[in-house]
Amino acid sequence: MAEHDRKKLAIIVQGGTLDKLYCTFILASTAVAMDMEAHLYFTFWGLNILVKGAMEKAGLPATYKHLEEQMKNNLRKMKYPTPYEMLKRLKQSGLFTIYACSPSMEMFGIKKEDLIPEVDEIAGAAAFLEIAADAEITLFI
Amino acid sequence: MAEHDRKKLAIIVQGGTLDKLYCTFILASTAVAMDMEAHLYFTFWGLNILVKGAMEKAGLPATYKHLEEQMKNNLRKMKYPTPYEMLKRLKQSGLFTIYACSPSMEMFGIKKEDLIPEVDEIAGAAAFLEIAADAEITLFI
Amino acid sequence: MAEHDRKKLAIIVQGGTLDKLYCTFILASTAVAMDMEAHLYFTFWGLNILVKGAMEKAGLPATYKHLEEQMKNNLRKMKYPTPYEMLKRLKQSGLFTIYACSPSMEMFGIKKEDLIPEVDEIAGAAAFLEIAADAEITLFI
Repeated sequence: MAEHDRKKLAIIVQGGTLDKLYCTFILASTAVAMDMEAHLYFTFWGLNILVKGAMEKAGLPATYKHLEEQMKNNLRKMKYPTPYEMLKRLKQSGLFTIYACSPSMEMFGIKKEDLIPEVDEIAGAAAFLEIAADAEITLFI
Repeated sequence: MAEHDRKKLAIIVQGGTLDKLYCTFILASTAVAMDMEAHLYFTFWGLNILVKGAMEKAGLPATYKHLEEQMKNNLRKMKYPTPYEMLKRLKQSGLFTIYACSPSMEMFGIKKEDLIPEVDEIAGAAAFLEIAADAEITLFI
Repeated sequence: MAEHDRKKLAIIVQGGTLDKLYCTFILASTAVAMDMEAHLYFTFWGLNILVKGAMEKAGLPATYKHLEEQMKNNLRKMKYPTPYEMLKRLKQSGLFTIYACSPSMEMFGIKKEDLIPEVDEIAGAAAFLEIAADAEITLFI
């Protein structure tokens, strides 16, 4: 299908907890399986999770912290892919783009070389709003 | 109004706390009062809240936990409907559809018979993205 | 550009923590810089943050509370504008509208005179859904 015909999912990933990462990557995986483009803009806690090694340490938010160990055990038993494994599979689709929020990088003192190599673009919010304005589905996670 | 003419509100309900449930049902109630369709896809903590008896126990998130009792008292004094009462009223509109996220059910070991009877459909994310791509308003709560 | 030609960003601001306020105002500032309209509907914790003096006291959510002091120090060192300073600059653009959610005001016993003077309109969800249905980008923060 020609690029301009594809529907688009545009997500601002502000959260960095395990529950929000799974929602993000399950939605993105489903979208690319439907031949949609998935554009993910990681900002704030989401940007911090793009730092090398951070995604493997993601846990549940304070409200659900007491369920964290049980959930991680269940996921292991189910051989559920980790968020980072999902991200790497998504990259193979050719329909998946990761943006790292440059103002967040400045705010947290994070440099390009600190980020996982799968990041496609370091960009300000304007670049992303441009894409989102053209997307059928826009979400803030 | 013919179905294809109606505007659509599509919400992914990921949260299961009282504040997010009220936001969800107030938005959905407003939408159906405006003759819009409201499609709610319950996933993760939101899916857990569809288990029988769970919605009645919903509280505030950790950040606002100290305000929970006061808020519940206020709502009782105002005779504000509970989230579940709002949900049941919404069902009468004929414009309101509840989807239970099947991957979340698998992840949490929740079965169809565990869910409240008002659920319309157990569905994967693809079914919902199809609807959301056609909706005027898409939100992740 | 004529008003009907402008693209619109419509955000429901439900959160009242510092991280969500920064995301909201950075997105809105970027949108107006792109000559888009930014419509912000403050509800629940977001509505509470419109009370005079509240925005200055906003902190991080429970999950990230331990990072609050460090973040506030960094922002001061960077001479980053506060959320309220960003809001006041946004007002000068003529493309920025703040709605205060009237059902939230009733639920929390908040009166018009309690709110900051920059609020443009006290409105129910219907007024906002009308705008959101016509917006290119809709988000729930």
